[in-house]
Amino acid sequence: MHPPTRILLALTDPEFQQFLPEPLASELRASGATVERVNPQGLGAGGLEARLQQWQPQVLVAAWSTPPLPEALPGSLRYVCYLCGSVKNLVRRAHLERGLQVTNWGSSISRTIAECALLHVLASLRRLPHWTFALHHEGEWQPRGQTPGESLFGQRVGLHGFGAIARQLVALLRPFGCRISVHAPDVNDAVAAEFGIERSASLEALFSDNDVIVCLAPLIPETTGIITESLLRRIRPGGVFVNVGRGQVVDEAALERVAREGRIQIGLDVYAQEPLPATSPLRGLRNVSLTPHVAGPTLDRRRDAGAFALRNIQAFLAGQPLQAVITADVYDRIT
Amino acid sequence: MHPPTRILLALTDPEFQQFLPEPLASELRASGATVERVNPQGLGAGGLEARLQQWQPQVLVAAWSTPPLPEALPGSLRYVCYLCGSVKNLVRRAHLERGLQVTNWGSSISRTIAECALLHVLASLRRLPHWTFALHHEGEWQPRGQTPGESLFGQRVGLHGFGAIARQLVALLRPFGCRISVHAPDVNDAVAAEFGIERSASLEALFSDNDVIVCLAPLIPETTGIITESLLRRIRPGGVFVNVGRGQVVDEAALERVAREGRIQIGLDVYAQEPLPATSPLRGLRNVSLTPHVAGPTLDRRRDAGAFALRNIQAFLAGQPLQAVITADVYDRIT
Repeated sequence: MHPPTRILLALTDPEFQQFLPEPLASELRASGATVERVNPQGLGAGGLEARLQQWQPQVLVAAWSTPPLPEALPGSLRYVCYLCGSVKNLVRRAHLERGLQVTNWGSSISRTIAECALLHVLASLRRLPHWTFALHHEGEWQPRGQTPGESLFGQRVGLHGFGAIARQLVALLRPFGCRISVHAPDVNDAVAAEFGIERSASLEALFSDNDVIVCLAPLIPETTGIITESLLRRIRPGGVFVNVGRGQVVDEAALERVAREGRIQIGLDVYAQEPLPATSPLRGLRNVSLTPHVAGPTLDRRRDAGAFALRNIQAFLAGQPLQAVITADVYDRIT
Repeated sequence: MHPPTRILLALTDPEFQQFLPEPLASELRASGATVERVNPQGLGAGGLEARLQQWQPQVLVAAWSTPPLPEALPGSLRYVCYLCGSVKNLVRRAHLERGLQVTNWGSSISRTIAECALLHVLASLRRLPHWTFALHHEGEWQPRGQTPGESLFGQRVGLHGFGAIARQLVALLRPFGCRISVHAPDVNDAVAAEFGIERSASLEALFSDNDVIVCLAPLIPETTGIITESLLRRIRPGGVFVNVGRGQVVDEAALERVAREGRIQIGLDVYAQEPLPATSPLRGLRNVSLTPHVAGPTLDRRRDAGAFALRNIQAFLAGQPLQAVITADVYDRIT
């Protein structure tokens, strides 16, 4: 009989409580593995290395506070289960090349980002930033007479990109009876039929033929700055542009020029430069809804990433394949 | 053969275009009736009376701009189809008593109000007013470190009232997997089962046992001021209270006190006094999302009320029963 697998959690108290609240922590302990936790706060990279060499775990569970892994890992370590997104600051490409398995939160948090996209769409259509300015800061009621606010019901929605977040967004949009079009390289007719959406022949068509555009494209060399001023100007007056994907997909100087004219409504969670500079012209515009890159999992939904990680750990213990594996190829595309 | 029924539309150009865009206007003209339109702007009550007496229509189609009907109506007039909500400024109780049929937009606009409720719920959970203050007005990014924003997924939602708006809201909440409880006198176990909701035994339980409370109760003597400070204090820290129903259902002074403490998030479209006084303590609070009674149909969805009215006119012409009829009883309860 083998000795039990050793799992080291390098998590702070809040990370442990947020990602692995009950019953998840109990389920992990019931997995048959020996589980130990170390608080990475004040531990440093050297402290973590010493702990790894001393305890020789097979699995390391990590989160934002975990320090970068040392170049030389203990021979026992076979799997790093990262509870969050980008592993670039945690593992090196060389670790992957030497056969270390690494996973992240995959698509377990996509629905919270889709939810934030829906919030920006509804807020933009209903002119919520305008009302916040008027009622909170200007002591007004309906200062400009009849407002041109719009409903989402029956609108045409165009999605740029069709990964996990976009697919979740389709579900949230369904009760609004929207006609949904998608422009994404990986969508064929079968996928379109499965999700009840249409394919848009080009980005130009996507921006011209829809009332609401939601940008969810990944940031790769081909998509950097792909949302140009010319595309943004195709959006109809009163139409909506929302970006909850990656800021650098948009030519932000162009977006600022278009935003300043007030002709379209804009909702943003991501920016070309983060934190958004205090001098950004996007600030102070009443047709722009702004959040500071918070679309990802709220505190109360970090448990979704924890549950996803737990299933991966259970699969690892059972010798089954893992989900959301970071291969060297995936690693190279991390933005 | 009878001469064709005469229908007089007393609508401004924008009202006509917004409520009866194509194909609705054509369908009305194809109904077999003789249709004439008068622009009530500058016509006055006397001008409308003269026109009614002169043309002797059987049906009058009215909206916000239509002046109040004269005490003495032409003998021909049998049906007033009001495209909007409250008929109190248009018809007199005596008209109803003498047999005039009157309808309004009924529940055709409920889904837009439900949509506005969802917007306030999402904005409150995600702290959108806080971010608007911070990013637009304070030049900040994430000034207070980790934000306690929450997702709607998996939350417990309590509805106070279960009329047409609440039923539409249930449909919008469905993709979020919320457990929905309702406190309303007209909900029995069969209705609860039909909508997949639970019944809450009391208002106290509704406020204690849910993360998000949405107030949609009608304003009647029994509900005036029924949302007390004691109820509001039952909401858990970080919980949400939204009112898109009637302002006077809430003890607004109590709401102001609770709001000022910042312990809960609040979203409001209606107020005890409208317009909201410039000095209201609700203004300027970053845990309060405010809109100026705009939850009802946005310009682009006034066509829903027009389509509803058209079906009523067609029913009238066919001698069939009408929907959303304003009886004397209903008239007395108008707020």
